[in-house]
Order: sequence, then C-alpha cells, then structure tokens
Amino acid sequence: MDKIRKYIESITEVNDEDWKFFSSKLQKKWYSKKTIIAEIGEVENHISFIEKGIVRLLIPNKEDDEITYGFSFENEFISAYDSFLTQTPSQYQLETLVETSLLSITYSDLQNVYEHTKMGNLIGRLVAERLFIIKSNRALSLLNDSAEKRYFNLFTERPNLIKEIPLKYIASYIGVTPQSLSRIRKQIS
Amino acid sequence: MDKIRKYIESITEVNDEDWKFFSSKLQKKWYSKKTIIAEIGEVENHISFIEKGIVRLLIPNKEDDEITYGFSFENEFISAYDSFLTQTPSQYQLETLVETSLLSITYSDLQNVYEHTKMGNLIGRLVAERLFIIKSNRALSLLNDSAEKRYFNLFTERPNLIKEIPLKYIASYIGVTPQSLSRIRKQIS
Repeated sequence: MDKIRKYIESITEVNDEDWKFFSSKLQKKWYSKKTIIAEIGEVENHISFIEKGIVRLLIPNKEDDEITYGFSFENEFISAYDSFLTQTPSQYQLETLVETSLLSITYSDLQNVYEHTKMGNLIGRLVAERLFIIKSNRALSLLNDSAEKRYFNLFTERPNLIKEIPLKYIASYIGVTPQSLSRIRKQIS
Repeated sequence: MDKIRKYIESITEVNDEDWKFFSSKLQKKWYSKKTIIAEIGEVENHISFIEKGIVRLLIPNKEDDEITYGFSFENEFISAYDSFLTQTPSQYQLETLVETSLLSITYSDLQNVYEHTKMGNLIGRLVAERLFIIKSNRALSLLNDSAEKRYFNLFTERPNLIKEIPLKYIASYIGVTPQSLSRIRKQIS
C-alpha cells in the first residue's frame, strides 16, 4: 500500500479518513507473465495501480499481426480506461509482460469513493489529467517524431525496463518493423 | 452563457452559487476566421467553450507541410490542454476555421474555481475524462481504422460541419493525400 499512497501524495495532500475509505476498496492481485488481465470486447471493470511489473496494451489484428498500443510500468495506473469510463466494450486488451502485482478498485467502488470522500474528485481529476497528457504525448509523437526519436525517448525514459520488453513489441509500438528497429538500436549504441 | 450551462448540466447537477462564481470568471471572445488563438511554443493560458464556430489544432511542419492534428466544434471545450495542464510550451497551435465565439477562463481563475466551489473538481474530472476519451478514440482510430473508415466516421458524426472544412485539412487529419480523399468521397457519395 505504501507505493500507491506515495503516488497519490505526490499529486495532492491526503487525509487519513479518505485514505482509509479508499484503501479498504483496493484488492491485491498477482499475475504471472503473459496473462491477459482485460479482454478485448469486454467492459473494463477495474482501474489498477502497478506495484510491480509491466502491462502491455495491444490490439490483436485481423491478420494475426497484433499492434502494441502502449505500455504501463511500476507506479502507474493501468486500465482499459476509455472502456472503464464509458462502460462500453474495450477495443484492446491488457496483458502482463512480466510477473505483475496490482492494487485494483472496481468501477462501482470508485463511484462510491467519488461520492463519499472529500478528496475523491480532486484525485480523480488529477489522475484523468495525467492520463490525458500521456495519451496526448503519444498521439503527438506518432504524428510528429521519427521512429528514431520515439525509440530514443522510450530508451532514455525507461533505460532498465526496456531490456525486459521483446524487440517485436517495441518495434510495433514505435511503428517500424523489427528489422528497422535493430538498425536504430545499433546506431544509438 | 446558456449553452455552456446546458453542457455542464448534461454531465452533472449544478448549484447556483457555484455557477455564479464560475460564470463570473468567463470572458467572451469573438474571432474572425483563420485567426491564431494559441501559438505553438507558448504556454496555453486558457480553456474555452465554443459557443459558435470551429477550431483547428495544427502542427506547422518543417517543410511548410502542416499537420491537422484535430478539430473542435460548437458546444465543446478547446485548449492546447496538455500545455494548459502542464504549463509548458505548446507543441501545436489553435486556429479558427470560421467565425468563432468563445467563453474563456484563465488558468489561475480555474484553479480558483477548483479551490472555492463544491462542484469544481467533479466537473473538472468529468471534463478531463471526456477529453481523454476523445484523444483515446483518435489514437485508436489512427492505429486501427482505414482512411475510408476515419472519413466515414467524421462524415456521419459531423454531416453539416464537414462542408465548412477545406478538403486539404480533412485529408491531413485522416492521414491521406487530398487526391486519395477525393477518391474516398466519390466512393461514399
């Protein structure tokens, strides 16, 4: 519980009463690697904090050629968040890349937190704003940066974690073939 | 003021005291068409509600070949929102496409609303969530849909407004050349 409290305290003050109410709703979950934790076509019922591990967002494509849509790392929230917010079927799935430990809250419990705590909406606003910024940077980078720049950014932001992600997923995320990514990696190192 | 109140009431109840405080901070602005309302490289200081008009988000490219990053329409909020939230320079600019009338609030006034009203954070959360969903759908569509599908979606969601947007901007937004878009339009009509 320490990490999630620290995360929330990094964005705003937390009072003990609200924290007690919120943390009582959190469920601890542990998954082995390559486990699907949210299915495509189903309504996402959880938002989760990653205590340890990496989660990949992917779109299984028609031609067996999946697209890696994003990654989430330790100390970040993960959810098929658009499906969660709209309570409509998800267009992508979530899969653990390595052994992963989560703290999860359900949709209805979170609505309860929004209604019954003082800080709920403030924290919810700040989390939604952060997730917007991540999504916006991703879209801008896809439109504006070269594949080299996108790889370089991921490489500098996540120097240790990048070693744990298979090359083909990184290539798909960056929007190049695995062969092109090999060339980029050689140039940089 | 009617339209913005209706918009907010469509997402949650509004109490009169909070409304008075919030609406006293709104500044009415009117722009002729093709006016830049937020510059690239500058910190965005406003979030605005479009009472009437259309705003285009664009990235002026190195080779004089600009990218249309998005559009916002009547009854929606518009801002270089990531720049606004992080108070860092914007990576794109905002430009009116037609005569446009806005209700704007500054960054510091909005922080005031968050601090001094009951509904501020709730509304702020719901607006941030809506903007996240729009951004997420856009990213998913860029990765997953054909140009035909993206045009068809814009066409069905905005049948009247699409007539007011020059073909080259729509083509850039969809990610095809103006020539390809002409072919797509012929197929659909």
